[in-house]
Amino acid sequence: MTQISRRAVMAGAAALAATPALASAPISGSQAPGFYRYKVGDFELTQLSDGAATFPMPDSFVTNVSKDKAIKAAFDSYLAPEGKITVPFNPVLINTGSKLILIDTGYGPNIGPVVGHLTANLAAAGIMPEQIDMVVISHLHPDHTNGLHNKDGSLTYPKAEILMPEHDWAFWMSDDNAAKATDPVNKNYFANAKKTLSDLKDHVTVYGWDKEIVTGVTSIATPGHTPGHTSFAVASGKDKIFVQSDITNIPAFFLRNPDWHVMYDHDPELAQRTRHKFYDMAAAEKAVVVGYHFPFPSVGHVEKAGKGYRLVPVNWNASV
Amino acid sequence: MTQISRRAVMAGAAALAATPALASAPISGSQAPGFYRYKVGDFELTQLSDGAATFPMPDSFVTNVSKDKAIKAAFDSYLAPEGKITVPFNPVLINTGSKLILIDTGYGPNIGPVVGHLTANLAAAGIMPEQIDMVVISHLHPDHTNGLHNKDGSLTYPKAEILMPEHDWAFWMSDDNAAKATDPVNKNYFANAKKTLSDLKDHVTVYGWDKEIVTGVTSIATPGHTPGHTSFAVASGKDKIFVQSDITNIPAFFLRNPDWHVMYDHDPELAQRTRHKFYDMAAAEKAVVVGYHFPFPSVGHVEKAGKGYRLVPVNWNASV
Repeated sequence: MTQISRRAVMAGAAALAATPALASAPISGSQAPGFYRYKVGDFELTQLSDGAATFPMPDSFVTNVSKDKAIKAAFDSYLAPEGKITVPFNPVLINTGSKLILIDTGYGPNIGPVVGHLTANLAAAGIMPEQIDMVVISHLHPDHTNGLHNKDGSLTYPKAEILMPEHDWAFWMSDDNAAKATDPVNKNYFANAKKTLSDLKDHVTVYGWDKEIVTGVTSIATPGHTPGHTSFAVASGKDKIFVQSDITNIPAFFLRNPDWHVMYDHDPELAQRTRHKFYDMAAAEKAVVVGYHFPFPSVGHVEKAGKGYRLVPVNWNASV
Repeated sequence: MTQISRRAVMAGAAALAATPALASAPISGSQAPGFYRYKVGDFELTQLSDGAATFPMPDSFVTNVSKDKAIKAAFDSYLAPEGKITVPFNPVLINTGSKLILIDTGYGPNIGPVVGHLTANLAAAGIMPEQIDMVVISHLHPDHTNGLHNKDGSLTYPKAEILMPEHDWAFWMSDDNAAKATDPVNKNYFANAKKTLSDLKDHVTVYGWDKEIVTGVTSIATPGHTPGHTSFAVASGKDKIFVQSDITNIPAFFLRNPDWHVMYDHDPELAQRTRHKFYDMAAAEKAVVVGYHFPFPSVGHVEKAGKGYRLVPVNWNASV
């Protein structure tokens, strides 16, 4: 048995004092940069995180299914912590080799700390806002358009042409339509459009459906979520992917259950038909689909599952 | 109709020459840093990518199912490009607040460009190799151990205690066992262990099963893939996750089809029983599972699906 001398005890105490009980690195608390690159033919696409919001599920989040039933179904796919949902916001950047095109712009700087990270993640990916040649807006909801402006009201992407879907631009920018709105969700959308987009009236270019709006990027009519809601096919060489925009909100709810209506849908019945039409096509073609509200990096295939569909996220590619 | 003068044509040509047809940013070709952080109680965990290998599926990749049947099943879940499989390699770092513990070390610098990225991704996450306090090896396969050394043979993590699973250490470091090996896969594993780990014989600490090998990290017996193959429970406060190591190889094949035998399993029947036992538990507990060969960031829940299980990747959290 070792005799513990006063000398050894003192040496031990000195060693302890010299060895702090903390790890050699502090707890970081910060996430990795939120971008993810992949090729589509000769194009390079970058998925970008604007952030994600976790909040208690509103009672009417699914307007045609009880909250209890919706929560139970989401729990069964393990994707929601109890009582709360997480909605991510993921714009996509397309580098065609001759143009840098950003589809949707996130919430911008005025909402809060969990969103508004698009420009920081663009910078992490090596892109400055003034390099963007074109911004294409899928529909006129605040989480897609409010990032068009900086906090001081200046344009976030000062050199970019701004393209707006013509039916949404006409609908949401109309004072007549705004005056007719009765429910709080739509009233808020009209007020936000008027407040944040009026300065762009002489600046934007509107685009129609089923047009190649820029080489390789074709607009697809997917109305319902909003009157002018638009998805996109992005094609180069033999490759093609689809940017669904908001055909579904979070896939654990609305891809798995395409007949559920999210509270943000303007025409829920039309949105439901659009979901089935689009995803029957995507499943049959085994197409790659990008979803604004899919979990980052928000790229996957879909497979039919029961009466709905299931997202099969792509394998993260360590190279591009 | 506009008359096109020679002067206008020349001005147009000058404008074209002054406006290069390239986007304002070149095609990047590089992926985002491969790390992902999340909390487990007070611990901060970081998933790290060592890379991913895409290669034509070996004829005997699944030893007890025909290649055609295996490929068809993988295609049906859309996860493999035709004829090729992608195997990712994802070690995990645990910051307990008082220790930095790395579980597995990747392939190291001697294989090729698609793997060996662990230290670069550690650096991207703000961690230098000399900060690592402890390296825990799950089993003695090259993709888990070869990152223990730098290209010049020095230790990658010079200040780290190195923990080896006792049954694997005894098995793979035995010259007697090596002499008895007949099949090329095992011969290669013995040769690699002798070549790359012999210098560590007086340096490593062996650990047993069902022990809290360091505060919050408990070893779990999951033999079959190798004789001493080990998984881990990582627990802090009320939170707990499981690090499965290689109970399954790529989940699209072996989690969906737990009765399939991967060519790398040492005792395939035992590995199969281990898979069912572990995943019946994980599905019942709705546990979070980390898989070395799951698609990055390699964290998910599992749900029962037919005769097997399905991985439900976590929502990427934009904050930690």
